[in-house]
Amino acid sequence: MTKERTNTGRAEIASRSEDFAAWYNDVVLAAELADYSPVRGCMVIRPYGYALWEHMQSHLDARLKATGVENAYFPLFIPESLLAKEAEHVEGFNPEVAWVTQGGDEALEERLAVRPTSEAIIMHMYSKWAQSYRDLPFLINQWGNVVRWEMRTRLFLRTAEFLWQEGHTLHATPEEATERTLLMLDVYRKFVQEDLAIPVIPGVKTASERFPGAAETYTIEALMGDGRALQAGTSHDFGSHFTQAFDITFLGRDGQRRHGYTTSWGLSTRMVGGIIMVHGDEQGLILPPKVAPVQVVIVPIWRSDEERERVRAFVESFGGALGTHVRVRTDFSEDKTPGWKFNEWELKGVPLRLEVGPRDVANNSVVAVRRDNRQKEPVGLDALAGRVRELLDDVQRSLFERARAFLEEHTFEASSVEEMREILDRSRGFILAGWCGSAECEAEVKERTRATIRAVPFDRGDEPVPCVRCGEPGRGRVYFARAY
Amino acid sequence: MTKERTNTGRAEIASRSEDFAAWYNDVVLAAELADYSPVRGCMVIRPYGYALWEHMQSHLDARLKATGVENAYFPLFIPESLLAKEAEHVEGFNPEVAWVTQGGDEALEERLAVRPTSEAIIMHMYSKWAQSYRDLPFLINQWGNVVRWEMRTRLFLRTAEFLWQEGHTLHATPEEATERTLLMLDVYRKFVQEDLAIPVIPGVKTASERFPGAAETYTIEALMGDGRALQAGTSHDFGSHFTQAFDITFLGRDGQRRHGYTTSWGLSTRMVGGIIMVHGDEQGLILPPKVAPVQVVIVPIWRSDEERERVRAFVESFGGALGTHVRVRTDFSEDKTPGWKFNEWELKGVPLRLEVGPRDVANNSVVAVRRDNRQKEPVGLDALAGRVRELLDDVQRSLFERARAFLEEHTFEASSVEEMREILDRSRGFILAGWCGSAECEAEVKERTRATIRAVPFDRGDEPVPCVRCGEPGRGRVYFARAY
Repeated sequence: MTKERTNTGRAEIASRSEDFAAWYNDVVLAAELADYSPVRGCMVIRPYGYALWEHMQSHLDARLKATGVENAYFPLFIPESLLAKEAEHVEGFNPEVAWVTQGGDEALEERLAVRPTSEAIIMHMYSKWAQSYRDLPFLINQWGNVVRWEMRTRLFLRTAEFLWQEGHTLHATPEEATERTLLMLDVYRKFVQEDLAIPVIPGVKTASERFPGAAETYTIEALMGDGRALQAGTSHDFGSHFTQAFDITFLGRDGQRRHGYTTSWGLSTRMVGGIIMVHGDEQGLILPPKVAPVQVVIVPIWRSDEERERVRAFVESFGGALGTHVRVRTDFSEDKTPGWKFNEWELKGVPLRLEVGPRDVANNSVVAVRRDNRQKEPVGLDALAGRVRELLDDVQRSLFERARAFLEEHTFEASSVEEMREILDRSRGFILAGWCGSAECEAEVKERTRATIRAVPFDRGDEPVPCVRCGEPGRGRVYFARAY
Repeated sequence: MTKERTNTGRAEIASRSEDFAAWYNDVVLAAELADYSPVRGCMVIRPYGYALWEHMQSHLDARLKATGVENAYFPLFIPESLLAKEAEHVEGFNPEVAWVTQGGDEALEERLAVRPTSEAIIMHMYSKWAQSYRDLPFLINQWGNVVRWEMRTRLFLRTAEFLWQEGHTLHATPEEATERTLLMLDVYRKFVQEDLAIPVIPGVKTASERFPGAAETYTIEALMGDGRALQAGTSHDFGSHFTQAFDITFLGRDGQRRHGYTTSWGLSTRMVGGIIMVHGDEQGLILPPKVAPVQVVIVPIWRSDEERERVRAFVESFGGALGTHVRVRTDFSEDKTPGWKFNEWELKGVPLRLEVGPRDVANNSVVAVRRDNRQKEPVGLDALAGRVRELLDDVQRSLFERARAFLEEHTFEASSVEEMREILDRSRGFILAGWCGSAECEAEVKERTRATIRAVPFDRGDEPVPCVRCGEPGRGRVYFARAY
């Protein structure tokens, strides 16, 4: 099921510092987060990976619902004519659409797209449902699968099918739509920073990086352990592009029919990849406690049957109670050494390990070992539940601080394209540089450095800065990076 | 968004007693559970319907996990060659498969089935993962969408795409597989009876009604309000059919490689239709409290602004606290009369309504009205949380008892096909009758009465009973019914 193991049980994973890409794949496979499938470009999310996604979903879903969003479900298939209604949208997605052309024995009269995203079908329904200003806003989210025919795929990061949530809202005014777009970006920022412990740069996408059909696309960008950027979530303000194309009107307070304004926003299983690449180390995964499927693993240690039973009774005396506070797994498997188990659960990124041997039983205590910094401490049973909670909170906080320090250390300023390229080749990371605002300069920088503008920050100030390529002054600096 | 309303706000829904099918559709649309979509055979599950499904999922998911099952996710697409590996399976599903033949601009070399069920892809992965008896059993479940190309569709009951869970397990022995098949049937029975308040008949399917590829299919069958049966959940024992076809072997304790044994089991959004058809009445839905998106609706009553503010302050004084125990919605909308709101929330099946007017404020109490039997009672604020809990429990229990009485009253014995037909035309329901065990008699009864054998009960005893068609003695009686 996993790669060959050494006799200490350590799965042989590539070195993170030497070959980040190989390390990433090895960790995904060895920790049993996911596996390749016989279906081109599609992966299997294995139980451990899916449990991680379930905890991510549960945190994000609660945050979405707290802003008034409700979940719903729309069809997987979108008739070609419907997808084609918004010109930029169809142009943007057509090259990556999987088409159903046959149903049972019957050749279809019209091809059906397997949804690459659901704007088209949802806007069609909104045009049917929107009657009066009293019905608005519509605040609907969908958890589901989408398909984008990708040529080069990577586990979690880029697959032909992936899981995500996509929210779609309809509003009476453009101001309200913009406000919602920014609100959802902020929900993503808090979710990614507070629950996944990943610091992000929020900002605006340039026109060339906008979602097909959007008037404005907002993004949060994270920095992976190899210094490349990952788009962590996006929120799109459509203005009336889709309501015009789908003729979505409502009766205003003044009795006039008018077009509404829409938004959409999505976050996907890609972020599982983000967690791995931000927090992991040479030993494997490190999972943020808030979303870790197993927060605490208890590893009993014994040398004789008599010791095993003594340790077992001791673990049973506190394990159940601890399990009501945190997600605990006890590894009493007989055919593995304690060392093998330590390695296995470190590979799987469990934030906290409790070691329990005969001496601990005698002391009425356990030895707690943090996954992030390997610190060990004895904890008496009396204080266990509280101390475990504290340690988990501290791991969550420390992971975020460590990632924030890394992001800061890997954010550079550059004043020429040559300088950008040197920095990118040397240490990678974000590069803050001036940009005049032209698509031409953006494209040339991309061609010469393979870096794209990840985000135009909200707070870039009014200081005029010369464009890194043409020297014409632009307002403040923007974030460039090579990206996943 | 809904049908025309009378001036009391009552949506005009067809009469349940006069036209059950029209009533069903009207309720689904008017209560905004679901809507038709422009995609052939596919429906939209609207927020209220999806919230119901989410609560169903959360109850069932907890029950599955309590038996050791873990969730995972497998690809939506299944290459044709993979689907074809098990002969009966492909033959059974091929007529209903939607085929992807084009990806982006490229015509695919091999067609991809949009999964009608996931045995094929999951068995392929199991063949890769199964190494040693130590790895077994595999107990994996998937929540997701599947597509079966249906010609005649009905909201929730039969749609080209539907949502479900499908569990797939792999075991070392046939006994263990059979035990798991029956365990999952029992999980379904408890979920449907205890959480959905729907009584069911558990039993075995005849060979002609088996899932394609199964050695044995077990079922729970429910009786709808019009006397037709609905298959509520099925659990399949595959023996080694799939492990032979997919060459799934493992190294036994004795060092020999051998084939494993598999099961699968599923329950779908069809059961939303079941809830509607079992519990609903002339006024619309009645939702079992355990899965109702809104368990308690508070309807304030006022005639003047001053009264409204007095009532509002009163509701705010207890609404928040109540909301920590149960799912509460307060309907303070200004443009609807209390009568309109009563009708609206009755249509939507909210189990308990709390009416609060100025007199109630003066009495420090509210008037509680049950949805199932319209009983009203004043409840003092001191006792509110406890009494609400009791009333919801009682509604849950009463719905089950009412449905069980209906099922019992609509279960008949018959000793001839003619008698079966008379009963079915008169009052419908289950018919217990003798069956010799031959497919020929089963088919002829179906042709003459449109009734199929829904379940061969587990406890049919040893009494020889003459076959309802040929008179040859069979063991005990089996359940016939016309079914959805």
